[in-house]
Amino acid sequence: MRALAAAVSRAAAASLAVTGLAFAQAPGTPPPPYADLLAQSPAADWRALDPESTLYFDLPAGRVVIELAPNWAPAAVTAVRKLVREGYFDAAVVLRAQDNYVVQWARPEDDPKAKAMQAVKLAPEFFRKMAGAPAFTRLSDPDTYAPEVGFSEGFPMARDPARGEAWLAHCYGAVGVGRDTGLDTGNGAELYVVIGQSPRNLDRNVTLIGRVVQGIELLSVMPRGPAPMGFYAKKEQWVAFRGVKVAADMPAGTRTNLEALRTDSATFKAVIASRAHRREAWFAEPGGRIGVCNVPLPVREARR
Amino acid sequence: MRALAAAVSRAAAASLAVTGLAFAQAPGTPPPPYADLLAQSPAADWRALDPESTLYFDLPAGRVVIELAPNWAPAAVTAVRKLVREGYFDAAVVLRAQDNYVVQWARPEDDPKAKAMQAVKLAPEFFRKMAGAPAFTRLSDPDTYAPEVGFSEGFPMARDPARGEAWLAHCYGAVGVGRDTGLDTGNGAELYVVIGQSPRNLDRNVTLIGRVVQGIELLSVMPRGPAPMGFYAKKEQWVAFRGVKVAADMPAGTRTNLEALRTDSATFKAVIASRAHRREAWFAEPGGRIGVCNVPLPVREARR
Repeated sequence: MRALAAAVSRAAAASLAVTGLAFAQAPGTPPPPYADLLAQSPAADWRALDPESTLYFDLPAGRVVIELAPNWAPAAVTAVRKLVREGYFDAAVVLRAQDNYVVQWARPEDDPKAKAMQAVKLAPEFFRKMAGAPAFTRLSDPDTYAPEVGFSEGFPMARDPARGEAWLAHCYGAVGVGRDTGLDTGNGAELYVVIGQSPRNLDRNVTLIGRVVQGIELLSVMPRGPAPMGFYAKKEQWVAFRGVKVAADMPAGTRTNLEALRTDSATFKAVIASRAHRREAWFAEPGGRIGVCNVPLPVREARR
Repeated sequence: MRALAAAVSRAAAASLAVTGLAFAQAPGTPPPPYADLLAQSPAADWRALDPESTLYFDLPAGRVVIELAPNWAPAAVTAVRKLVREGYFDAAVVLRAQDNYVVQWARPEDDPKAKAMQAVKLAPEFFRKMAGAPAFTRLSDPDTYAPEVGFSEGFPMARDPARGEAWLAHCYGAVGVGRDTGLDTGNGAELYVVIGQSPRNLDRNVTLIGRVVQGIELLSVMPRGPAPMGFYAKKEQWVAFRGVKVAADMPAGTRTNLEALRTDSATFKAVIASRAHRREAWFAEPGGRIGVCNVPLPVREARR
């Protein structure tokens, strides 16, 4: 363990306790310079999550916090928020965990409300027009799947100027609405979260509504289902939620108050550069390139 | 759950029971055409794993099977194989699980043999010369990190013709040797497995020795460590192996006999095409592109 547990590394790494930060720490390396970037960042480079667009999915193991993307899937976000407020997900269970792919939850198929939802259609929001879209911080390196990739309002995304369209990207932690073959069948009653290698082939094929900003590790460790596509074979394997809420509906004292680094800030651009060009002593080659699903999206507890 | 659990989908998906196959099944889609490709593939397109280059890491929850890559990291493969045969890993424990990154194991740092290994150096094998390298099946789509990407001998890899160098890529399931800052400190006594978004910035910075071909889901569900970098905070959280063996050293009847699709076969090229161009009815856009870490590398129980 010599390569990993030097006291100096552990102590220095302790300064990295940034909530929900999924960063790529090299095996055995000291903490990256960007930890300093975050520590030294001005308060104005951070934004509090909007309680109206923040969902809590409370599992027995703890809280999963999802930030919604109302500017990217307004109808689906509205639909999911409404279902949460109606208590729809209070009876939902995690019924699928497929390795290197997704965790998914829904009401059981024999649930009366689940059956009623089968008739509800919702127009797809697989992409939106670039015109009028929020600020975009573009990455310069090539992407396998899209002409341009970058970040907007805290979300990894892609766009195609030739089509004039932009869309959220299926990176780790992305939250989407499951659908059947019909494009309008994704009504928000079933949600999935990416827990593996980014399945970017799903981009533009399904509506993403946001991303997990805290607690993804509660989902990613769920035992993989033995049935095809990772479904659990027995009801006993389902995991129920203890409660599902819109943050705005919770008393202020019971909320998980988070703030996210603005992806149009100077600090975030420095984060991108620091992750693309690895200057830490551990690296033999600094690289110089970075993919859209490999850039950390820092979230931390709100300062008071 | 209507979008997911239609009986027809479940039944059809059952035909996909290919061992260890990490494929990207769209949420709610019927099984992809490539399942038929595999079922109809000629036997000659498959190869039995070489028992001398197959390791079993037996956890309480089951067996993790690793295929070694002797043509890509000959010295490290030899070193790890030797350590396995000496029983070195019988006293190793999983001591780190960092979400969206790696699971890592080693002997505890106060173990006498672990201390002795600190003096053992091994020249890095971060890449090799392209000249004389095994057959390469190239992907045509751009990669963020390397000039060329593809597959060789069952492993995802990258290469740079300008340098005349090739290397294994850090995709999901990749197995590497942890190292300290010194480039020759990765002696094989500590191993890590990628369990999240491909950390391609590690390419050319650390020696990869192979990949997990079965049982990755036993590692990817391990509770994430609460200490910095995903280390477990208490010894009680460590997970010991029940046994670690080279397959060749096991009686034939106790081996896990697997065969892998040859990555230079016509079937594999058809698999790539089928995953890049999604023809299933579920897909609104077939895509047409595929990344090196998104191509499934089919492995199945050997036919008798």
